[in-house]
Amino acid sequence: MKITPSFHAQHSPMGAHSSFTLGMFGAVGGFALEKGGPAENGTFIGYKTASGKLHYLPFFAEITNDMERYTLDDMKNQTNTVIYGESDIERDYQWATDSFKAPNIDFKITTPFFAIPDPATASLEELKFASCPAVFLSLTLTNDSDEDWEGFFGLQTQKYWSALNGAPGQKGFTSRNELGFVTSDSESQPFCDFTVERALSGEHTQKNFLLGSIAGVHFAVPAGTTKTLEVVVGGYISGNATFNRPTRYAYTNYFSGLQEVFSFAQENLGRYMEEAATRDAELAASPLSEDQKFLIAHATRSYYGSTEWLTDGDRPIWVVNEGEYLMMNTLDLTVDMLFFELRFNPWTVRNVLEFFVENYSYIDEVFSPDDTAKLYPGGISFTHDMGVANTFSPVGYSSYESSGLDRKCFSYMTCEQLTNWVLCAGAYMAKTGDSEFLKKHQPVFIQCLESLLNRDNPDPEKRNGLMNMESSRTKGGGEITTYDSLDHSLGQARNNVYLAGKCWASYLALEQMLNQLDESGLAAEAHQGAVRCADSLEKAFDSTLGFIPAVLEFGNESAIIPAAEALVYPWEMGLKDAVSLDGEFGSYIRMLKRHLENILKPGVCLYDDGGWKLSSSADNSWMSKICLNQYVAREILGIQYDGEERADAAHVQWEVEGSKFYACSDQFASGIPKGSLYYPRIVTNILWMNE
Amino acid sequence: MKITPSFHAQHSPMGAHSSFTLGMFGAVGGFALEKGGPAENGTFIGYKTASGKLHYLPFFAEITNDMERYTLDDMKNQTNTVIYGESDIERDYQWATDSFKAPNIDFKITTPFFAIPDPATASLEELKFASCPAVFLSLTLTNDSDEDWEGFFGLQTQKYWSALNGAPGQKGFTSRNELGFVTSDSESQPFCDFTVERALSGEHTQKNFLLGSIAGVHFAVPAGTTKTLEVVVGGYISGNATFNRPTRYAYTNYFSGLQEVFSFAQENLGRYMEEAATRDAELAASPLSEDQKFLIAHATRSYYGSTEWLTDGDRPIWVVNEGEYLMMNTLDLTVDMLFFELRFNPWTVRNVLEFFVENYSYIDEVFSPDDTAKLYPGGISFTHDMGVANTFSPVGYSSYESSGLDRKCFSYMTCEQLTNWVLCAGAYMAKTGDSEFLKKHQPVFIQCLESLLNRDNPDPEKRNGLMNMESSRTKGGGEITTYDSLDHSLGQARNNVYLAGKCWASYLALEQMLNQLDESGLAAEAHQGAVRCADSLEKAFDSTLGFIPAVLEFGNESAIIPAAEALVYPWEMGLKDAVSLDGEFGSYIRMLKRHLENILKPGVCLYDDGGWKLSSSADNSWMSKICLNQYVAREILGIQYDGEERADAAHVQWEVEGSKFYACSDQFASGIPKGSLYYPRIVTNILWMNE
Repeated sequence: MKITPSFHAQHSPMGAHSSFTLGMFGAVGGFALEKGGPAENGTFIGYKTASGKLHYLPFFAEITNDMERYTLDDMKNQTNTVIYGESDIERDYQWATDSFKAPNIDFKITTPFFAIPDPATASLEELKFASCPAVFLSLTLTNDSDEDWEGFFGLQTQKYWSALNGAPGQKGFTSRNELGFVTSDSESQPFCDFTVERALSGEHTQKNFLLGSIAGVHFAVPAGTTKTLEVVVGGYISGNATFNRPTRYAYTNYFSGLQEVFSFAQENLGRYMEEAATRDAELAASPLSEDQKFLIAHATRSYYGSTEWLTDGDRPIWVVNEGEYLMMNTLDLTVDMLFFELRFNPWTVRNVLEFFVENYSYIDEVFSPDDTAKLYPGGISFTHDMGVANTFSPVGYSSYESSGLDRKCFSYMTCEQLTNWVLCAGAYMAKTGDSEFLKKHQPVFIQCLESLLNRDNPDPEKRNGLMNMESSRTKGGGEITTYDSLDHSLGQARNNVYLAGKCWASYLALEQMLNQLDESGLAAEAHQGAVRCADSLEKAFDSTLGFIPAVLEFGNESAIIPAAEALVYPWEMGLKDAVSLDGEFGSYIRMLKRHLENILKPGVCLYDDGGWKLSSSADNSWMSKICLNQYVAREILGIQYDGEERADAAHVQWEVEGSKFYACSDQFASGIPKGSLYYPRIVTNILWMNE
Repeated sequence: MKITPSFHAQHSPMGAHSSFTLGMFGAVGGFALEKGGPAENGTFIGYKTASGKLHYLPFFAEITNDMERYTLDDMKNQTNTVIYGESDIERDYQWATDSFKAPNIDFKITTPFFAIPDPATASLEELKFASCPAVFLSLTLTNDSDEDWEGFFGLQTQKYWSALNGAPGQKGFTSRNELGFVTSDSESQPFCDFTVERALSGEHTQKNFLLGSIAGVHFAVPAGTTKTLEVVVGGYISGNATFNRPTRYAYTNYFSGLQEVFSFAQENLGRYMEEAATRDAELAASPLSEDQKFLIAHATRSYYGSTEWLTDGDRPIWVVNEGEYLMMNTLDLTVDMLFFELRFNPWTVRNVLEFFVENYSYIDEVFSPDDTAKLYPGGISFTHDMGVANTFSPVGYSSYESSGLDRKCFSYMTCEQLTNWVLCAGAYMAKTGDSEFLKKHQPVFIQCLESLLNRDNPDPEKRNGLMNMESSRTKGGGEITTYDSLDHSLGQARNNVYLAGKCWASYLALEQMLNQLDESGLAAEAHQGAVRCADSLEKAFDSTLGFIPAVLEFGNESAIIPAAEALVYPWEMGLKDAVSLDGEFGSYIRMLKRHLENILKPGVCLYDDGGWKLSSSADNSWMSKICLNQYVAREILGIQYDGEERADAAHVQWEVEGSKFYACSDQFASGIPKGSLYYPRIVTNILWMNE
């Protein structure tokens, strides 16, 4: 199926929590900083013929005119205007370039991305190159007519423009010193006005009319000529970036302001274009389908839009914001984005893990749901997040988790966050062999094992490998999982087979790391935990149902795909035997394969369009988790089923039609995004590039 | 007529460009910084009975619940809720206090204002007291029932809350360190949640749930008791406040952040309440009507909401923002707000005048509309404004004025701004006798006289006292007046009798100041300018029409009230003889009185409701100018007419019904605000307190 060219995508520098969001036709977008959704502005690109006809790419909702706020005069209406639409435009959506081709207008947005070097060891020049908060635009107008044209490029803001005070030859505008654009095109003239039409009318074109919400440049394209305009768009937040803890954006270490960002980006244009071309080529060369490549490119863009590379003095702080929700380093997202970050910049994973240990870990007690008043020793775990919207939450607390809730959204995720930290650490270690990290956190790994065991049961005699106890932080309530808005099949933590899988994988991760630390006794204890867990799960397979029920209590009969999700961790940690159909855990693995084969069916865990439905009992599917579980099914379990290729096509449609405005989103009900919009987490699909 | 209690009012500290805007029922409002309109949040005040019924003051649009962004669960609807309305609430609207009385709920907002001391001479303690960016709230609940209540006070934000890290005993929240609230009430408990109802449900009340958009405190009000809660609301912007020129808010010199603002405001509560009580008593004691007192109180609140007291190093910079438009120190507003500022803090007038001389003056040439290409010497004038939305415009240019426009909105106001600067200086001198200012700017006064004469005609033989020449800055266009969105009767500058009146008054102001500078020859030249102008105007009275037409060209036949407006300047400068019916200009003054008496009639310059219509030919009336011209008519010209008292009642209705949401606005078409919303300029009515 040919996909529509009309959908928003984030176009973001790395680590600047900003995006030049563009691509949905007839919609607002543009450059925004620290915003959990598209900007609310028009982008005006096109040309005006000598005979007065205006031609636009369709990157605005309507041609607004702020002038009416100031005067009661009737406004002239646009009459002689062509706005290109879906039938006129082709879009080429690569990993780092996004190109639009309309009649006589070519427009390309380039977002180079690459390994962010470790600030502990990299040179200043490398760090400067990686942190530069700029996006690259290129506009080519081909005037094959016999009349002269006036080309234009303009951006709107609600916050007023000011002419750029830049280097010689630079023309552009900034708004509140926070965002702006520049070109060094010698033939173009800057303008600021209420509308492009008014600016090009010649009546009073000037750059000092600061009430105009649209600023840009215009330039001659004589009959029979072709003209290319290169533009850099950038954002810059100076001073404190966060609250309750003073940090700054890393780029402030290398750039004094937007002026320097612009000049550096222009001077290094060639190097940035090379990086983008390399990424484009990598993805193009992979053996994946076009749909799969699309989903990887889309996920990658959404991920970078949420990234925020900060410094607290000399110390780097890596934050990924939670899309529209803006929560900071949500740990149940970190564990999913892990694979992407380990591919490009593993130091960010260590950075986040250590920040959790220092500031966002806590020790709780646990209780059994049978007797909420009786507390037992619990252990270490980690908070759901580190704050929201650049406001760090108090040490030891997330912005999200609330006490007194029994298995409802906003309850604690104590057990799952414990597994998430352990799994991230395990994958990080397997990828990097960072022995300093391993030794430094030896006590934490030991605490994690103890905590994991106590959440099964403080009494060793009663352990079965699953989570049976609730955290005292819930104050008599009940924990949830990352699937917080799903029904109990995936939302409830206790006795959940999805979370049990993560416990199993966590025991294996701890075993591996404790062995590396020569803690063979504890490693063996961890191994026993994994064995207990796999045994319990394997036994829980219900052959009448044909699958393992999601929650092993109260007669639950939901079928969930993520029962097998956690296989990805030992696989990526190199523990291939543990996930082998005929290894030590073979019967557990074979059970999971049988489980998946039986539920990947229409009416159970497949939608009519072939898309994956994570739970048979809830119309609420997470794209990030679908991609992860697809990898587990295909690559680890070797599952194939009829119509498999329809799934990716369906998922593409969910994003480009369902989430047309919010770029790449995560949570869908029957293909319609219902939350987790504009989300970073879908980069789990980077795993596909291993296939 | 009893006015509705439901209308927004700005409640602002002095010089902080911020407002706790509240008062319209069923509407959003709340605290906002640097915003040209009400905030977009709910304010939740009331109590919950033990049996579960919630009672609210109506200061929100609806009881929203952000929770639905996070979960697909059905939300519980509010069921057991009372929201008080117009029939339940009485409002007492004094100069510095605004009180609401609903059943069992008393709520008062206090905004102390007083003379801001001159930073050049005042003590640090005085400056600290004057700059403190805080507003004072008091909530009293009277529980005359036999069940216990839980009282609450909560504010909403779209930008996330964080628990205040305040002094011992302080409870409150801040958002991005920029705004927040505090109470030191020992019995109250802080909360942060999606809704007040959820917070009071007891299920999980806590202050660390940072996703909640509503933060507040709740407190017990046992049966039969009365409880009063004192709250301070404050705003604070640290670091650079403006762009293109680095300045900071003055309060940053005296307070390190919100925490210090809160503590200081609480410690000095008594002194602030005394100032407020003094202002309330002053206005209450004046012999004005209730409608007139209302309009003064309303105008004062809107003025302070637009004020911005900055410092550039040691130098204070006073800015008044232009209401919704956010233009900085618009000079044609300065001349209207002059009387208010001279009453309270004349140093701000000097501050603005000198900033114009240094940064926003320019020298032009002039041309006659007959031959736009032939340029003659012009002279000094001043820009329309200094920038917009804290972005200073380039030196010598306003954000507003555009070339190439012929007597249309956004054209140059060169001649009028020249008169405005001169009239401000003249009034400032008459009020303060500041001889240092006089001497320092002697060359400027001389330049102003030359410029004023050249704008009449560069050829002394051809002068008639009116503006006949256009500025070269219009590039062949035509100048406008402050009435920029009116028809030519008031919008065109050339040969306009409104502007001619200001030229006449400017000549008199220059005469007075040049005499004080012993420049008797130039003073005499200025006097001759005034004589020429008065003569021309007096002769232009059209006895067939019964008034002087607005524009003395092209057979214009509009009648305009502001023909007489400029009489206020010599009057306030103490030049009582100049405006006397039988002084030197007696025949001009008598003509103006005749003019006004003949046009202050229904169908000419009165609306059906008795409100004033500034021009007979345009449905577009400015409240600030109405108030000013009422003063001229009543106090200077001694005009009385039948049904005069209906005017003030009508103007009150325009504001409280017409401009219900935007607090005090300026520009009305038939009682409906059409622009210049949320405006500072209406304080021209401070003049009434001289009557």
